[in-house]
Amino acid sequence: MRSSGREREDPDLGVLSGRTLFSLQRELFTRLAEQGHPALRPRHGAVLAYLDENGSRATDLATRSGRHKQVIGTLIDELVELGYVRRQPDPADRRAKLIVPTEKGRDQMAKSDAILADLEAGHAQVVGEQAYAEFKRVFRLVAEHQVARGDNTR
Amino acid sequence: MRSSGREREDPDLGVLSGRTLFSLQRELFTRLAEQGHPALRPRHGAVLAYLDENGSRATDLATRSGRHKQVIGTLIDELVELGYVRRQPDPADRRAKLIVPTEKGRDQMAKSDAILADLEAGHAQVVGEQAYAEFKRVFRLVAEHQVARGDNTR
Repeated sequence: MRSSGREREDPDLGVLSGRTLFSLQRELFTRLAEQGHPALRPRHGAVLAYLDENGSRATDLATRSGRHKQVIGTLIDELVELGYVRRQPDPADRRAKLIVPTEKGRDQMAKSDAILADLEAGHAQVVGEQAYAEFKRVFRLVAEHQVARGDNTR
Repeated sequence: MRSSGREREDPDLGVLSGRTLFSLQRELFTRLAEQGHPALRPRHGAVLAYLDENGSRATDLATRSGRHKQVIGTLIDELVELGYVRRQPDPADRRAKLIVPTEKGRDQMAKSDAILADLEAGHAQVVGEQAYAEFKRVFRLVAEHQVARGDNTR
């Protein structure tokens, strides 16, 4: 949390990640609304980004998104209500539930893939293909390496 | 929103930004709690990251963080209550208010600067100093270039 001015000249990793995430989410969900998915909101990205056609456990979605379990649970409830996912028994453990995308959910996944590819192609054009590929390579290492002590419930 | 598996092999810009932001925030706020600021929560980062010693307008904080004005307003209220900022009349326009860090707020800013520098130094060690500097350079361009149609109120 830089003092005056420095945040704008040399923004830290958190500021850059936050600014990029929220701008990208807003553009993605604006385009999704134009393509038949107007009921979705940027907050739903925390679940939608991690959906698996074969289904996922809610706890797994929480871990992979880095969000609190309670937040993920609320978002899943909303997405069930909106018709994007349903809860199914897990064949591997019938006491557990899997979150599985519906046909509408799969349509949204395919459209999001295409929108994100287009947004990223735009960035690659601005900075250069090679520079953008290298940026993604380092970003994957940074994202994996970022420690996060503190549980998912604060 | 990649289908099964792809999100893990070739995560998109949103997944990488989200994962990095939430992990980094959790680690930052865990360390801040250890250094005398236990009442702060990761959500406060949306305001704390953009504080200016000379004060800022709430609308400016909303724009720069990319978050809804209502969210920022709520977070400011919480931070006033916790003693990190106060609202002061804006000398340039006495009908407007500036959000100004208190002494406790400035202590948190200095400690956050140091913690973030340490976290980023850790990443630079993992990927190499030059690679990390280049990563930050491209990330600044990407963050600036990311269009975000759609207002701040959805």
